[in-house]
Amino acid sequence: MKKANKKMSAVIVVIGNEILSGRTQDVNVSFLSKWLNNLGVRVNEVRIIEDKEMSIVNCISEVKNKFKYVFTTGGIGPTHDDITSKSIAKAFKLKYGFHKEAYDILEKHYKPGHFSEGRKKMAKMPMQASLIYNPSSGAPGFIVKNVFCLPGVPSILQSMVDGMRNKIVGGKKILSKTISLNTVESEIAKPLESVQRKFKSIEIGSYPFFRLGKVGVSIVIRSIDKKKIDHCYKETVSFLKKRKIDIIEKK
Amino acid sequence: MKKANKKMSAVIVVIGNEILSGRTQDVNVSFLSKWLNNLGVRVNEVRIIEDKEMSIVNCISEVKNKFKYVFTTGGIGPTHDDITSKSIAKAFKLKYGFHKEAYDILEKHYKPGHFSEGRKKMAKMPMQASLIYNPSSGAPGFIVKNVFCLPGVPSILQSMVDGMRNKIVGGKKILSKTISLNTVESEIAKPLESVQRKFKSIEIGSYPFFRLGKVGVSIVIRSIDKKKIDHCYKETVSFLKKRKIDIIEKK
Repeated sequence: MKKANKKMSAVIVVIGNEILSGRTQDVNVSFLSKWLNNLGVRVNEVRIIEDKEMSIVNCISEVKNKFKYVFTTGGIGPTHDDITSKSIAKAFKLKYGFHKEAYDILEKHYKPGHFSEGRKKMAKMPMQASLIYNPSSGAPGFIVKNVFCLPGVPSILQSMVDGMRNKIVGGKKILSKTISLNTVESEIAKPLESVQRKFKSIEIGSYPFFRLGKVGVSIVIRSIDKKKIDHCYKETVSFLKKRKIDIIEKK
Repeated sequence: MKKANKKMSAVIVVIGNEILSGRTQDVNVSFLSKWLNNLGVRVNEVRIIEDKEMSIVNCISEVKNKFKYVFTTGGIGPTHDDITSKSIAKAFKLKYGFHKEAYDILEKHYKPGHFSEGRKKMAKMPMQASLIYNPSSGAPGFIVKNVFCLPGVPSILQSMVDGMRNKIVGGKKILSKTISLNTVESEIAKPLESVQRKFKSIEIGSYPFFRLGKVGVSIVIRSIDKKKIDHCYKETVSFLKKRKIDIIEKK
């Protein structure tokens, strides 16, 4: 990866056998990608890995140097299979133990006598980490250098991201325009390629879909440059009209 | 990765900016994982990467040696952003061009005069590849050594997997039992850890969920050994009963 690309790049590391086995459908990648996109941070890669210490340590050791931001989801709960915090400490060669502030937060969160051993485990993490507060269920996430560790339960993760907003230095928001068509991809392949050649810095994607028993194609134009998007969009609409291709929706 | 682990291991490589941007929710990982699981092939990792030639070539070059099976989804259509076939040829240093059988299939699939340039592109791939037939829309996927290339549209992908069934040498099916509980994870963390310690070869996962405004936990026990699962399951149910934890569902 070129240094220039590292600037606003991010990787999401999903930790959990339940996603790999197909038991659970991940929805955090799509949520986080869109949220980061609004901050001008682009997700360049996603890895879904097993909750094995070696897998986590190896993966984090590699991606922390390759991307500006690393976001992990899953594995910070109280049970034996929650080994993300310990593994992150290992990947950074940091001390793993009770985090004072996290311990205080959790102690206050539970009724007296209910701060059990299992719950105490959620205060164990790299001891020098910064916390990501959790307005839903108490147990915080944490940040070590460029690695942000979030829980796997989507509603809890979603309630926490605003708390890490100010730790992320973003870039220009990535804008997009979508044109949905009543046609097949092969009908637009050639003229769309010509448009792509003309606008090299713009990302043009073509995605077939099935809706209400009908086949269609969405053209998605993405860039941080609004002017260029508008220009590229006009050229695309122009060739579609010339070829009398039915436009279902523009947005 | 140890050699022993490579035996029945698989990686899924999802190729597509639309997944990374959050625009499209991937559902192929969950489908393929379950389908492979039934053949006794375990998905150990998933990567979602950009549709850039360098990203695809680098990723495939790495994972083809690390896993027994590699499954790619996406990027084999007719448009300019469909670059999977070309990149796979490059990763294997194979000739990329019209595949005779694929060309014949597609030529027959379309009405005379409708086999356009865009459609012809879908017959371009590593020339020596084996085909994965496509009963939905004609355009085949392909296999190069241990790399199986499938399309990104879920309904088409799903219609094609049975056609590659006989190219996959699986192992024993991975079995699982699930116990869903009316409790929180921290209540079961300690006794569940003891069960895990006793059954080291069994994979025990604990997954919190929210359903109908209620919090709960699912314990999932996975192994290829039915006897061991049954034994582990009994011990789990026994400690749950002893602690008077409400079992909602067993399956």
